[in-house]
This record gives sequence, C-alpha cells and structure tokens, in this order.
Amino acid sequence: MSAWQTYLDDNQDKFLNDFLEFLKFPSISSLPEHMDDVRQAGQWVADYLSNIGMENIQMLETGAHPIVYADWLHAEGKPTVLIYGHFDTQPVDPLDKWDNPPFEPTIKDGRVYARGASDDKGGMFIPIVAAEALLKAEGALPVNVKFFFEGQEEIGSPQLPAFMEKNKDLLACDLALSADGAQWGEDQPSLMLGFKGMCALQIDLQGPNMDLHSGLYGGAVQNPIHALVRILDSLRSPDGKILVDGFFDDVVDLTDADKAGFAEVPYDDASYKKDLEVDDLFGEPGYTTYERAWARPTLEINGIYGGFQDEGVKTVIPSLAHAKITCRLVADQDPQKVFNAIKIHIENNTPPGAKVTVTALGDGVEAYLMPSDHPGNHAASAVLTELYGKKPYYVRVGGSLPVCTLFKKYLDVYMINYAFCLMDEQAHAPNEFFRLSNFDRGHKAYCMLLKHLSEHGLSS
Amino acid sequence: MSAWQTYLDDNQDKFLNDFLEFLKFPSISSLPEHMDDVRQAGQWVADYLSNIGMENIQMLETGAHPIVYADWLHAEGKPTVLIYGHFDTQPVDPLDKWDNPPFEPTIKDGRVYARGASDDKGGMFIPIVAAEALLKAEGALPVNVKFFFEGQEEIGSPQLPAFMEKNKDLLACDLALSADGAQWGEDQPSLMLGFKGMCALQIDLQGPNMDLHSGLYGGAVQNPIHALVRILDSLRSPDGKILVDGFFDDVVDLTDADKAGFAEVPYDDASYKKDLEVDDLFGEPGYTTYERAWARPTLEINGIYGGFQDEGVKTVIPSLAHAKITCRLVADQDPQKVFNAIKIHIENNTPPGAKVTVTALGDGVEAYLMPSDHPGNHAASAVLTELYGKKPYYVRVGGSLPVCTLFKKYLDVYMINYAFCLMDEQAHAPNEFFRLSNFDRGHKAYCMLLKHLSEHGLSS
Repeated sequence: MSAWQTYLDDNQDKFLNDFLEFLKFPSISSLPEHMDDVRQAGQWVADYLSNIGMENIQMLETGAHPIVYADWLHAEGKPTVLIYGHFDTQPVDPLDKWDNPPFEPTIKDGRVYARGASDDKGGMFIPIVAAEALLKAEGALPVNVKFFFEGQEEIGSPQLPAFMEKNKDLLACDLALSADGAQWGEDQPSLMLGFKGMCALQIDLQGPNMDLHSGLYGGAVQNPIHALVRILDSLRSPDGKILVDGFFDDVVDLTDADKAGFAEVPYDDASYKKDLEVDDLFGEPGYTTYERAWARPTLEINGIYGGFQDEGVKTVIPSLAHAKITCRLVADQDPQKVFNAIKIHIENNTPPGAKVTVTALGDGVEAYLMPSDHPGNHAASAVLTELYGKKPYYVRVGGSLPVCTLFKKYLDVYMINYAFCLMDEQAHAPNEFFRLSNFDRGHKAYCMLLKHLSEHGLSS
Repeated sequence: MSAWQTYLDDNQDKFLNDFLEFLKFPSISSLPEHMDDVRQAGQWVADYLSNIGMENIQMLETGAHPIVYADWLHAEGKPTVLIYGHFDTQPVDPLDKWDNPPFEPTIKDGRVYARGASDDKGGMFIPIVAAEALLKAEGALPVNVKFFFEGQEEIGSPQLPAFMEKNKDLLACDLALSADGAQWGEDQPSLMLGFKGMCALQIDLQGPNMDLHSGLYGGAVQNPIHALVRILDSLRSPDGKILVDGFFDDVVDLTDADKAGFAEVPYDDASYKKDLEVDDLFGEPGYTTYERAWARPTLEINGIYGGFQDEGVKTVIPSLAHAKITCRLVADQDPQKVFNAIKIHIENNTPPGAKVTVTALGDGVEAYLMPSDHPGNHAASAVLTELYGKKPYYVRVGGSLPVCTLFKKYLDVYMINYAFCLMDEQAHAPNEFFRLSNFDRGHKAYCMLLKHLSEHGLSS
C-alpha cells in the first residue's frame, strides 16, 4: 500500500472532524450580515493549507469576498495543476424545512447534513486532504499544484473576470480541475465535457399609443400581441428547429464519437416523460434528447406578457406586449453574433402596424467545450475507471458554468470537472448533505490523478 | 306652427329646470351606497310621466334597481312604439378631475355639465318632453307609446333578460326606439344599424408539471409558451384573415348597398393613423377600415401571460401559459357555434408535449343587425334629413349593445338608435356634458318621428 493511502486510512477521523469544523462557518455570500463569516471560512482554509505544507498562502482581495490562493511548485519538469473550488454557500431559507440546524453539521446514515456539505465545502476539502496525504506521507506533491478557492461562487462570481485578468501569471497552469461539480451516480463516474453558453433578450412590441376598445378598433389596427406571437412563432419551425438565419453558423457539430458517448448514458424516455407529466418530448428533429439538451443550441421563451391578465374578460386591444427569450449556446457560437442574428430576424418578421424593440439582457456567456481526447481527460478517465470499476460517461450539461469559460479565456487552459458530489444531494435546498463514501473515494481519486499526471504528463 | 312646437318653444325654461333637477340625483348604479338614489331618480321620472298625462305608471322590481314603465295606448289602429333609456349613471371618480361637482349641474357655453347629462339622462328626458308637448298641446299622442326606463344599464343590465322574458306582453310593441345612443356629429345625423356580438374565451396551456431550468431541459420538452404562440399564430393568417374552420359560416356578407353607405362616411386614413401613432393599419384583406371595424367579425387576443415577467433574466421553461381572446361577431353568427369552432381549431393545432384547455368566458352575445330598408329607418331617415338638412349616414358599431339583441330576442322587434347625444361628450369620464342645442333638436325630432310613424305606419 502506498504511503499516502496509509496516511488517508490512518487519519479518517481527523479529516472528518476537520470537515465538520469547516462546515460550521455560515459563509453565505449573498447576505451582507455573513460577509465576515465568508472571510473567516476563507481564513480557516488558508490556515489549513499552511498547516499541511502548502506554500505562498494568500488571502487575495477582489473588492468583495476574498480568494484563497496557495501553491506548491517544486515538482520540476512536471505539469502545473490548478484546483478550483469555493468556500461560500447558498442561504438556508426556508429554515423550517431543515431537520437539523444548517450550520451544525449532523452525521446520519453515512451522510453529513449541513449547508455547503455538498456544494462545495465537501467538494473543495477533498483535494486539500489529498494534498495533505501526499505532502505528509511523501514530503512532496507529484505535480505542481495551485489551489484557487473563491468566496462568491453562489452570487455568480462578479469580481472573478477582473481578478483573473489581473492575476494571469499567478494562476498560470497546464490544466485546471474543478472540485465543484458532480459525478453521474454513486457507482458511475462521468466527465463533463461541455457547458452551454447563453444569450438573453427582450422583445417589446408597441401597437397603438394606448389601450383600445376591441369593439371600436378590432379589425382596424394591428394588435401588438398578435404581432408578438407571429414573431415568436417565426423563430422556430413547428417541429422545433430554430429558423433564425445565421443562428447555426458557428455551431460545432456533434461527432459520431460524441454521439456514441452520449448513447452509452442510460436514458429512459418513459420515465423522463412520467417525471414531467408530459405526453411527448419535443425538440429539434434528428437528435436524441441528450444530444438536444447537452449539445444543441436552444431558444426558449422564458416569459410573455401583455394586455389583460386577470379573471374574466376585458375587451381591450393592448398598446404593448412583451416577451423574454434565452438561447442556450454551444461552441463556437458568439453570444453577440447570435443576438444580432435574432434581432435582425425579429425586425424582418415584425408585421405592419407595430413597432418592435429588441434589447440584449446582459453580455451573454460563451459555451465551454473541452476536447474529449484531451490528455487531462485520458488521465481522469483512467483513474475514475480504476476507482469505480467502470469507464466514466462522457457527458455535457445544458446549463452554463462561466468559470470554465473564464479559465479558457484568461488562462487558456481547459478545466476538468473532477468532483465527487452527486446531483441529488440537495445543494441549494434544505437538508443538503454529502456522502461520506465519496469523501473517502474523492481523496484517493485526487491522489491518484495527481500521480497519474506526474507519470504521464499532459502532452497528447 | 304646430301646437306641439309652440308648446316646446314656450316651455324651454321649464324643460331646462326640470332637466337640471333630474341631474341632481346621484344615481350611480354600481355603488351600493347609491342604491336609494337610483330608486329616487326612477321615482322622479315616474312622477314626471304621471304629471304629463302618461298612464299605467309602474315602478317594476327586477331584484335590483327598478324599471320605470308608463304607456299611452289610445291611438287606435296606429303602431305601438316603445322608447328605451336609463336613469342610472356611471361613478364619478376621479372626482378631482371635475371642474364642477358632478351632481350640481352647471351650464356653460350652451352645455350642461353633470354626470349623466349625456349618458343617459339628457338622452332619455328628450322623448319625455316630446310626449309632454304632444299630450299638452294636442291632448293625445299620434301613436301608442310605451316608456321603458331602466336603472342598471351602467352595470350591464344583469336582470334585464329575465325581466323581459317575464314581461313580454307588457312590453309588446311594433318598434323600439333607444334614447340611449348618439348621432354622428353636431351637424350630421346617423342611423346605427348594427352592433357586433361577442364570444370570449381563455386558453390555458400546460407543459411540464413544474417550472424547469432552461439549461437542463431546454430542447428536450415542449415549452407551453411556444405551444401557445403556435396556436395563437394559427388563428389568423399573416394578413389578418381568421383561419378557424367554420368561423365565417353564418356571416351575413356586406351588400353593395351596405358598402356604398359606409363609403359615404368621411374617413381619413392619415389622421386615423396619426391619432393612434401607428405606421400602418391592419386587418382582414379586401375590406375598408369601416367595413372591418363595423361589419366583419374579428378575433383579438386581449391578454397573454406566462413564465417570467419581471426585470432581467430568468432561465425558466414555465409550466403554464395563458391567453384571453374575444371575438366580435356579426349577424348571423352564433356565439356558441363560434366558440366550438375555435375550440376545435385550438385543439387541432396544439403541438405535442402540451395540454390545452379552452374555456368559454360567459355565454356570448349575439350580434344585432337591423335591415337598412326597415320602415322604421325610412321614417327616422326622413325626419333626420328634414331636421339636419342632410341625409343620415347608415353606420354600424363594432361594440356590443345587448339591449338591442334582447329586444329582438324577447319582443321580436327592431330597435332604432334614436338619440341626440354625441360621442365626444365625455360619457363615463370627468366633465361629462350635454349640448343644449341637441336638447331642443331632440324634442322636435321625437315629435316629428311619432307624427311620421302615425301618418306612414310601419308596413314596408
């Protein structure tokens, strides 16, 4: 048995106690009254990193919640791996739905219940323990490691882009690992290769300059709700294909390998429909549900409103009508270019008698897509296969994870989602928990991956 | 000069004083605290009718506000004419926008300012004065007359259908005249031959059983807002033609004479557009604006709502989406049949993955269309032409006037809109007023019409 494994085995109780201590900080980043708790949680992390032999420990200011940085850079000729996570948490409301106080961690049936247990204190403490085992048992890390833990992930990391822009040298690395994320299942590993980007916009239709009596003006003037539904209906074909000219221009098509990978992931149409209580699924023709949800761009109306919305009848032709749309983008779509294409489409499809305004909501987010054959993925796949006795699924997520995009943009590195939470652990909800079985497995997984990267490097 | 004309000339001051007295009752039918004021206004009318020699005066109960009935039925062999009006008024808010207290009538520049002056105390007092002049000056009316004045027109006459059903014999007549309504302009008479009916409905779309994350489920399931806009867009062609199968089945087409009549009414496209601040007008192809607004059925979305409606972005696929629609119907469309046709169309055009519910809002209203060559119209046209020195326009109104439909349904008589208010007199708004010039002209108009009907009868 390797020295680090022995160290891990011998110190399980200590790691658990340390983890419980970490969980007691009410480090809720969105609430001003917990500003100091976030900082104290960060300080606890910094102290821990110092105690285990990490170097160059820094609490870095962002203008809001601090970032904790530490490194160990004595593995000459070996890759430099940056490990990301966050020590802030979501709020706890509704508090009365918790079985135990959210910041008094409680162990029950092999799980630790606490706010942040899964997202992301459990996640980010795992690579720290792995580094501790390696440093204590072997006196060195097998690769160069930089820890980068932030305190504002749950509020969307508003200061992160500026921070990364300013600290490119400090953060420079060959590969990033995110300790925030999840595996597919308790017995099934996964590698998440892609996250979608986003482009959000609002459509405002103006018809007549005031609400009109539908008896006196019906049939004479354009009704802005009719104009709006015509525009919206023109955006997608009846079978769900997006019809905006230029929308698909830069889309990276799914390869046969991508499709084969997705097809390995179990999928049950009937239970998917049953869970949502729908008779049919619906989406772009020619693609499976996972292909559509994970790897094809989408356009969804998120909200629509105009005219009379109360009980009963009001015979009005409204003056105004509105809709909100978000598109989920895939590599290599440019959010600004997509917005422009949609804007032109809307303007070209606005019926006579109504004026349209199309407004971008935010700057948009670029999609993130990591090559499945990246050497980092080969390394992670090999380790996960050994640990779980099963090859990982190669999946993507339809949601956005801006931090991946930021790492690619500012540091030009890919980030592997290498985390050992599961999606069912009530992150953001009452009774959040973390499985202790994954705590243990995660430590091994990080030690093994760092060893693997040391042996095989990152050249493909 | 005829005796009735002399009587009218000699008693102008008295009529005006009586009118001002009538206007002082705050007979607001929608406000419970004015319940008794409505009744007192009705009692004042009943007393007045008694004093001028009308007979069989009755305050008839409806379950809410009373109806005032009176008749004079000694014109043997002559037609029986029922004259309709209402003594209740709209509320007065916003009170601070009134230049004078709304129930302290104020004369200024040939106008009487007061709530109800135009709608409809001025209107309904005119035929009473005409009857007074004929009875006092000639001792008899030239035709049989029944007065039928209600106290709940401004709240939609909820008890009127049941009342008419029960009192068919009492109300039986050869022709009805409505003293509630308007002429086209101060120097331009009109005959309103038609009012549209109505059919109102709500569409509710259910997609997934809860709001979903647009990143995780976008592209996988039907979005009920997309399903709704598809349905709504299918209801009308891009150029405004209603596409519901069977919708036009019972529509009475415009005759060449109808079109020629409408074409005589001045219409200015540019000023119509300017008033509403729209670049284009819009509606069913092949018809003029008046033809569409007055005599073609319409389908208008009055309201739409679903999903996120606040500032900013929410990346949601909503569970529900809704729309409200009213159709304005023309003769001989049946509201129930139209509702059924739309319901079938909606159900047939609902995309997969969404469940639709179509609900009728109310029972609907049938359209009213009076033949332009009805002898009552010939009589009214002859009198109006003599009085104004101009032939009346033959027009219709896109709004609904259920009382016309009720008279046709329960009494099988047509109702002529024979009233001398104008549309610009701020009915329902602050500073409502009535032109005294029309008060005088209206008295003559009613005397002359009753004389005309006596001489020429109602057989075509």
